[in-house]
Amino acid sequence: LSATILALDFGGTKHAAAIAAPGERQWRAVRRAPAPPGADANSDIRTMIALARELLSSASPLAVGVSFGGPVDTERGVVRLSHHVPGWEGVSLPRILEQEFGVRAAVDNDANVAALGEYRFGAGQGCRSLLYITVSTGVGGGWVLDGRIWHGADGMAGEIGHTTVDPNGPLCPCGKKGCLESLAAGPFVARAAQEQLTEHPGEGRLLLDLAGGKIEEVTPKLISDAAEGGDDLSRRVLDAAAQALGRAIGNAANLVNPDLVVLGGGMMNSGDRFWKEIRRVSCETALPQLRVEVVPAALGNEAPLWGGVALAEEILGLAS
Amino acid sequence: LSATILALDFGGTKHAAAIAAPGERQWRAVRRAPAPPGADANSDIRTMIALARELLSSASPLAVGVSFGGPVDTERGVVRLSHHVPGWEGVSLPRILEQEFGVRAAVDNDANVAALGEYRFGAGQGCRSLLYITVSTGVGGGWVLDGRIWHGADGMAGEIGHTTVDPNGPLCPCGKKGCLESLAAGPFVARAAQEQLTEHPGEGRLLLDLAGGKIEEVTPKLISDAAEGGDDLSRRVLDAAAQALGRAIGNAANLVNPDLVVLGGGMMNSGDRFWKEIRRVSCETALPQLRVEVVPAALGNEAPLWGGVALAEEILGLAS
Repeated sequence: LSATILALDFGGTKHAAAIAAPGERQWRAVRRAPAPPGADANSDIRTMIALARELLSSASPLAVGVSFGGPVDTERGVVRLSHHVPGWEGVSLPRILEQEFGVRAAVDNDANVAALGEYRFGAGQGCRSLLYITVSTGVGGGWVLDGRIWHGADGMAGEIGHTTVDPNGPLCPCGKKGCLESLAAGPFVARAAQEQLTEHPGEGRLLLDLAGGKIEEVTPKLISDAAEGGDDLSRRVLDAAAQALGRAIGNAANLVNPDLVVLGGGMMNSGDRFWKEIRRVSCETALPQLRVEVVPAALGNEAPLWGGVALAEEILGLAS
Repeated sequence: LSATILALDFGGTKHAAAIAAPGERQWRAVRRAPAPPGADANSDIRTMIALARELLSSASPLAVGVSFGGPVDTERGVVRLSHHVPGWEGVSLPRILEQEFGVRAAVDNDANVAALGEYRFGAGQGCRSLLYITVSTGVGGGWVLDGRIWHGADGMAGEIGHTTVDPNGPLCPCGKKGCLESLAAGPFVARAAQEQLTEHPGEGRLLLDLAGGKIEEVTPKLISDAAEGGDDLSRRVLDAAAQALGRAIGNAANLVNPDLVVLGGGMMNSGDRFWKEIRRVSCETALPQLRVEVVPAALGNEAPLWGGVALAEEILGLAS
């Protein structure tokens, strides 16, 4: 156990710790715990250290790589904030972990770390650059360029969720109109379907059936199931979300021309039609001289943990 | 003269050659020549070598750095094509120049080279990453990331002109709707003003006066002059172009978060109001956590030549 890397994933609703030996592609062991309501930064850190100690007992790992569910100032080595848990502002998470485990630790935000995880161990193996996009309750993203996470001047690179896809689109909570997030993230897709059901009574029968007749119980999963079953309203709603994603991806391809675009997150389980429409509009939006390869994430919810391993390997000089 | 770098700029309508000593910020000498109608790749190359020989006579430069007005495959060291001059497909321009001058040569496309020129010698000095955008008869762009030109997987990075700004916007010659180019490049802005003048007779009096009463003679320069003079129609047209630029810049900032955005090209002489509107919409489009600094290009039409010097310095190992 002393020759293992410790990977930690501080999520909004759950935490995970895992250990793996450098070069290996399977976990030696994984531990998970919910982030209980009422948690703060200190309790989160204690929970995580307890998980890690279950894995390591008194041994030291070789290095620690950490995914954090919120913005991180990687240059200063501090968490900026958590959108879910109070008390994280300015916490020097790498230093705390270095003191606890006696080895070096690296921390980055979850979308960046997941991008690195997919690049090194998942869908992006063998490519030089990729854009990772996660589409779930929000839309996040991260870049790997020439094998390294690209942070940008303020550590904010990858915010594809708040690129404007349609200046006349729906209002996003960020205050702008037609952000990708407001057109493609799960809660917004569910709301769009609910609005359509209300505006067009008689349409979307299958969707409404699946929701037990209750418009307010419509979820992205039910929309996907209804679309699969041939429900026109559900297909229309999902097509619109796919088109927004395709447009944002095509724009990103025109701007940066990455080798690969990797899509993960719960919304990406919305079926073949959803994927086809994303790919169609991505290619249509990008110039014909450039390739836009759009593939599913390979690591699922373990991408941040594997990205943690990759961060730790960078510390150890093991990253190729 | 033997201790100078040779910089070459193959433009669509004119060619330029210049020599400078490494580390110096002033030309030792510059020569320019028009690209005559009927030119082909061979005559362009002969013209350029003649210009260079006027500067160097029989001496060899230290290295040659070249800006080419069209897509270049930098990995294979060949020109892909010129949009203006026939015969350029697959020409190994670096090898031809290396044989002529007996030293190493590097070639890249003009937007990339201008970006590098501004980064090393112009508006981008001291920053780590920038997006350079030229707004003239078209809209082109180039990235410098961590001090190097970022080419992307197919050498197509930087094509901000064909990012979709408004999916319901005007048709672009590329076949898509609402590309930045179709909303902000000079000929499209002129056409928008001409359409407005036709649709709203009685409006745009000052603009029409400046054009000698002839709608078809309206140019971006006249629109800018009329806007400066208070002409409402001209202001509306320029505001719309500025808003499209601001949106595309804000989207690029959300995606890549560069230190700086540098704007050049003839359209950027459209006055303070135009610049203010670009900056306002850029900042509005970008997330509040990130800086969007938008500045004018410093090197004007010499950016490609200075970028050529920077390319040559990279060859010589002189780039910091």
